[in-house]
Amino acid sequence: MNSYNPVEIIRKKRDGHVLSSEEIVQFVSDYTKGNVPDYQAAALLMAIFFTGMSEGELLALTEAMLRSGEVIGLADVPGAKIDKHSTGGIGDKISLHLAPAVAACGVRVPMISGRGLGHTGGTLDKLESIPGFSTRLSVPEFRTVLRRAGLSLIGQTDTLVPADKALYALRDVTATVESIPLIAASIMSKKLAEGIDGLVLDVKVGTGAFMKTRDAAYQLASTLVSIGRRAGKQVTAFLTNMDQPLGRYVGNAAEVLESLHVLEGAGEPDLVELTVALGGEMLRLGGMAQTEEDGRARVAESLRNGEALGRLQRCAAMQGAMIDLRDPHEPWRQTCLHTNRVAIVAQSSGFVARMDAEAVGWAGVAIGAGRERKEDTIDPAAFIFLDRKVGERVEAGEALCHFAVAADWPEGRRERAKTLLESAYEISTEPPAQKPLILDVLK
Amino acid sequence: MNSYNPVEIIRKKRDGHVLSSEEIVQFVSDYTKGNVPDYQAAALLMAIFFTGMSEGELLALTEAMLRSGEVIGLADVPGAKIDKHSTGGIGDKISLHLAPAVAACGVRVPMISGRGLGHTGGTLDKLESIPGFSTRLSVPEFRTVLRRAGLSLIGQTDTLVPADKALYALRDVTATVESIPLIAASIMSKKLAEGIDGLVLDVKVGTGAFMKTRDAAYQLASTLVSIGRRAGKQVTAFLTNMDQPLGRYVGNAAEVLESLHVLEGAGEPDLVELTVALGGEMLRLGGMAQTEEDGRARVAESLRNGEALGRLQRCAAMQGAMIDLRDPHEPWRQTCLHTNRVAIVAQSSGFVARMDAEAVGWAGVAIGAGRERKEDTIDPAAFIFLDRKVGERVEAGEALCHFAVAADWPEGRRERAKTLLESAYEISTEPPAQKPLILDVLK
Repeated sequence: MNSYNPVEIIRKKRDGHVLSSEEIVQFVSDYTKGNVPDYQAAALLMAIFFTGMSEGELLALTEAMLRSGEVIGLADVPGAKIDKHSTGGIGDKISLHLAPAVAACGVRVPMISGRGLGHTGGTLDKLESIPGFSTRLSVPEFRTVLRRAGLSLIGQTDTLVPADKALYALRDVTATVESIPLIAASIMSKKLAEGIDGLVLDVKVGTGAFMKTRDAAYQLASTLVSIGRRAGKQVTAFLTNMDQPLGRYVGNAAEVLESLHVLEGAGEPDLVELTVALGGEMLRLGGMAQTEEDGRARVAESLRNGEALGRLQRCAAMQGAMIDLRDPHEPWRQTCLHTNRVAIVAQSSGFVARMDAEAVGWAGVAIGAGRERKEDTIDPAAFIFLDRKVGERVEAGEALCHFAVAADWPEGRRERAKTLLESAYEISTEPPAQKPLILDVLK
Repeated sequence: MNSYNPVEIIRKKRDGHVLSSEEIVQFVSDYTKGNVPDYQAAALLMAIFFTGMSEGELLALTEAMLRSGEVIGLADVPGAKIDKHSTGGIGDKISLHLAPAVAACGVRVPMISGRGLGHTGGTLDKLESIPGFSTRLSVPEFRTVLRRAGLSLIGQTDTLVPADKALYALRDVTATVESIPLIAASIMSKKLAEGIDGLVLDVKVGTGAFMKTRDAAYQLASTLVSIGRRAGKQVTAFLTNMDQPLGRYVGNAAEVLESLHVLEGAGEPDLVELTVALGGEMLRLGGMAQTEEDGRARVAESLRNGEALGRLQRCAAMQGAMIDLRDPHEPWRQTCLHTNRVAIVAQSSGFVARMDAEAVGWAGVAIGAGRERKEDTIDPAAFIFLDRKVGERVEAGEALCHFAVAADWPEGRRERAKTLLESAYEISTEPPAQKPLILDVLK
């Protein structure tokens, strides 16, 4: 109390000094309780944007945020609890089949996901495109589903990390989102609140990621790993390529269908490769595989033999949704996508040399697969299909991609999507060098 | 409207880009109207703290703030209108005798002053220690006093530069005070709102100033001069030494008495030197002196011959106060200072080598000559007297300085003042090299 003064804390940070844990805890706690006003928090966030945070400060910030709300206790759920978190990409439906595949191999996956942010998609929006699927479980319900199905997929609850909710909303309107320590504390406070034993991070890098350069992604990844380890968790971070969307579909219901293909033992090679790699590491962290190779083989097998699909069906059933793949006429699968299609056609023949994945993401937002404003609702039936991806051959006049949009969708937004997608492809006469999907692993 | 987005403006500034005049005007206008919340303004202020502002941005900010309220029209008041502004020092009572001295020489001085800030004193607080002196005149009253007395000394009105009032209060609580462009826009918007033709700036540098180094002071001075000239005004900036207080007294009523000594043709040499220098330049800018030397001589003469004193008496009478120096028993002069004195005694013999003027300023705050919190009231009768200043000889056991405080003043604050004053003096066996009072002039 006595000598504590929010202005002095802001000034100290502004001048590049290191804040004590007590100062950080007090500031976050007072802000969450409404005793420190938004304008002082905004000034501190901008000062952190410019001066960064030490490892100790970052850990204190993460723990202060974590302690602002409930921490889910999972000690009564037997087995290792390992989650996966992605920093945000385009077409990234990995969680939908990864979580059940890992659960099928004996590691529990308590997964709390977020909504789409900016040009990137969110697992929560994808789950909610499945009719009946409830992502708003209470913590006891979440625990029950996790125990019985081996996984549970839900959204943020009101009781978890309220400091992050308040700070995130403030960062969004004060241009302080793009700060590695603030991103890291936001991610890790939410993940540590899940009561997990370990975490596999998928840090995206490339044209479609928030981190455009490998250096920035590496810095974020090592920051996340460091916070997690100092909090006593097992953490591995993958740096993966987001120079083009994952899979072929961008759009909520379409991505669920594409994910179900993977669970039927098929699916796009990049989706399978990343799922098996991340899942293998989750099994290794959870003690269900000696080596990552062993883990990869077991995850691949669970996708092939239908056990992963069975896990998703069990989880979905407990959360209110029926997923029946044996019936090809199941009404949702027949009607969940718009039939009104617009194709983007190649102007010349050649190879796709490069894609601007962020432009594809914003095109998705333009057709309603994401939100322009926080209060917007998603159109789950809108999607983009990539007829061609990087390295693939196209002839002039053939479709590079096409999109599906509601018949009464505003003309301006439809045109914006078209312009963005036309600009997203670069064609060359020579095939480009292929980049690996997995760029690095920090473990 | 359409593409205007406060977040984009914050981001643009944060990333080091130059804002357009339209963006700055829109942001300031929306903030003043309450359409941009404090937290977005706080984030922008902190971004400006780190990335600075171009000359063009600074002029746009100053003009946007200026235009947020009334600009006093003084075209109907005959003669040149020249003001003086100090960036804040300790013991700086110059305005009290400078303004009437310059007015006595035929240049009008429309002076709007501020309160003490942090460890520095404010002319407004000093004026208000004179019984009956009203500093809250309406603009028409201000204009009348200026026309008849040749000067008027008032405080900020509600209608002048409301954007500065709002932004200043926000800067104070978000640790964004110490930014040269923000300081410069705040000063110049208020001075330009006075309707002046020219301005002499006294930019303080040293241990008691906000600018501790000559480089920082020079940068502020040249920024202020540049804004003023681009706004079409004549501006000269002095860089003056604030390594020790001006004169011997620090405290409101005591400083008024010390100033009256100068108006009686006496006074401390440093006070007279600075008054004559600043006043000479005001006369030159106002066209009442060909050279600064000529101006200095005329100001010195007005102090000697009682004309300056007469001007102050006329101004004071019109603003509600009687200042009668012929009556030594005039009750205010007899009773306006506390009689309860505490001396700070030299521990060794030698010369005063150095003073920490800021510590003296904070000691003044501790005894009630300034405010610890905005809502505090001043004790006009509290003061510090400097028995010794830099370069002067002291014997062990003699007083370095002493202070006067209310009999019922809290013991803790009294002790703090004592500790601060004990730490403020550095004694050495050799006399120190004397620094000039006027370090540089930008004209």
